[in-house]
Amino acid sequence: MTSSAVDEHEEHSTPGVYSKPGQEFTRDTRYITDRIVHATGSAPGSDPVEGPGGTQLWPVEPGRYRLVAARACPWANRAIIVRRLLGLEDAISLGLCGPEHDERSWTFDLDPDGRDPVLGYERLQEAYFARFPDYPRGITVPALIDVPTKAVVTNDFAQMTLDLSTEWTEHHRDGAPDLYPEHLRDEMDAVMRHVYTEVNNGVYRAGFAGSQESYDAAHDRLFAALDTLEERLTTRRYLVGDTITEADVRLFTTLARFDAVYHGHFKCNRNKLSEFRALWAYARDLFTTPGFGDTTDFAQIKAHYYRVHRDINPSGIVPKGPDLSGWLEPHHREQLGGRPFGDGTPPPAPRPDVQVPATATPLR
Amino acid sequence: MTSSAVDEHEEHSTPGVYSKPGQEFTRDTRYITDRIVHATGSAPGSDPVEGPGGTQLWPVEPGRYRLVAARACPWANRAIIVRRLLGLEDAISLGLCGPEHDERSWTFDLDPDGRDPVLGYERLQEAYFARFPDYPRGITVPALIDVPTKAVVTNDFAQMTLDLSTEWTEHHRDGAPDLYPEHLRDEMDAVMRHVYTEVNNGVYRAGFAGSQESYDAAHDRLFAALDTLEERLTTRRYLVGDTITEADVRLFTTLARFDAVYHGHFKCNRNKLSEFRALWAYARDLFTTPGFGDTTDFAQIKAHYYRVHRDINPSGIVPKGPDLSGWLEPHHREQLGGRPFGDGTPPPAPRPDVQVPATATPLR
Repeated sequence: MTSSAVDEHEEHSTPGVYSKPGQEFTRDTRYITDRIVHATGSAPGSDPVEGPGGTQLWPVEPGRYRLVAARACPWANRAIIVRRLLGLEDAISLGLCGPEHDERSWTFDLDPDGRDPVLGYERLQEAYFARFPDYPRGITVPALIDVPTKAVVTNDFAQMTLDLSTEWTEHHRDGAPDLYPEHLRDEMDAVMRHVYTEVNNGVYRAGFAGSQESYDAAHDRLFAALDTLEERLTTRRYLVGDTITEADVRLFTTLARFDAVYHGHFKCNRNKLSEFRALWAYARDLFTTPGFGDTTDFAQIKAHYYRVHRDINPSGIVPKGPDLSGWLEPHHREQLGGRPFGDGTPPPAPRPDVQVPATATPLR
Repeated sequence: MTSSAVDEHEEHSTPGVYSKPGQEFTRDTRYITDRIVHATGSAPGSDPVEGPGGTQLWPVEPGRYRLVAARACPWANRAIIVRRLLGLEDAISLGLCGPEHDERSWTFDLDPDGRDPVLGYERLQEAYFARFPDYPRGITVPALIDVPTKAVVTNDFAQMTLDLSTEWTEHHRDGAPDLYPEHLRDEMDAVMRHVYTEVNNGVYRAGFAGSQESYDAAHDRLFAALDTLEERLTTRRYLVGDTITEADVRLFTTLARFDAVYHGHFKCNRNKLSEFRALWAYARDLFTTPGFGDTTDFAQIKAHYYRVHRDINPSGIVPKGPDLSGWLEPHHREQLGGRPFGDGTPPPAPRPDVQVPATATPLR
């Protein structure tokens, strides 16, 4: 369940334990599937209405919702990138949890008094309980919170970013890219499904494997997928079409964490990302594109994985490597053509209050 | 204490625990410092005589001693390489322990009935107790055993290989190299001291660090030393002089384990060895030299570290990576000149009964 507050896999029987001896890792994919959509017909401030299949539909309303994320988490990083690429900063505020959640919840320990300044919460869990007092599953980021009621609306990370692209269009910045173009959706959906099952979740399948056999299979499955993507990206600048799409955002957040944590901590070590020619250049191309590298905090990423998963790394010691300077080496991907933002423009630099500290990034 | 049976660091308070929370790793360097020398004046089969400083001196005598080693262990691998380069196979027999020693001792679990065929022991510990019934320190490999009494003679790995070079000369093969040439000893001693404290032991200092601070310092100290060696080996084919010496053997056994275990398991991850231009080519040059790669068993190396140090890797899962094929890429080190075996010749291929299984080596 994304980067979960309580844990990062299915029903956790033991707090702080992420791999189950003898068992494969299976992600709990039961989320709060409410959506925020533009055509509910509801007045501002109104309650959600029931949509198809029982899904609660909340009205798009600038200023009403707060995105709670954590820079460490790949699933939350995805939402941070999309919000920034689309220029939704004024429409949806951002609360950031620290990298080292405790057994119960992601926490707002980075905020001056340990409380989110808008919600007043110490733990994201409080927003879940405000909605469902007995919420039984992982307290995950990203989550969208209804600020008036301080209650969680959705933590369905996959739908969440697509809805930012398609339901919030009237609040996008000028020049915002179309991250989910209608004519590419079939291809994107197939590619994104592959990226999710094989790569985004594939690294966790290896890292949280509870037996040698399940690890071995997960390792080989992951690298088979990376080999396929390497081939695809050898002749194409982006995953689908010739501009940046949500598919690239989804692959990027795993690639950005690959050498820093998945290679060692999750034993995804046939090769480093930096040993793939095309994938590594592709990752660097995105990294140096506004919205990607400037939302990536390697210090928080390493602190999260190495300090939270004590069943994998009992000492909690965080490696000093890898050397990050390679991220800024020329990638030469322009030679493949492509138009990063299509007919749009790059987002402006991040606002000072949400900049990643220079100490957590490659030296420029 | 080398690759110790009982553990790999100083007095072990808790079996199976290799790092001590809050503490730096300090190697116990108290060994059994007996030596086997050619001029004791004793008759074959006789007891050792007291030498300078109370050291017991045993007579060189082909067929009398058995080297007990483990392919997994870098300190034992050193002795295996030197014995083979010098052609001492007929003079000193070899017993091999498996990679996964238990809490008490390295064991002969690879032998058909779990017993060393010459000594009849299940555990190397028995040879230590045959000499010192209350032996209190780690049961380490490499060890030289007096076959008639089945008792350990020495486990002083640093002196052991130098004595194979200088005391056993009359039993060396034709064409054996001089691994410790007299005119280079001052320079070699200085280089080997650096290699030992900074690299051979440096990786353990990082891996067994008990605090973030001691790990951070160990990591930086290790890579500073590797940077120095990288520079030295950019213009020189070998560490000292223009032929292979004991100094190269000592550096090689750590480099061979670097990407396979130290990079991930010991968090020595600023870079992989394969990201150093000269060091990586140097390691491959040696690897493809008879005596080096053909004594390196990557499967045993990985099994040892990942399955024995459960305080670092609780699951005991052994990574499938890294891809080993790079070891056989052309190294082009011949361009630096040098004569690998000086006026001597390479050793013949390993005997069939001591060949490393093909499954444990890069694909040729």
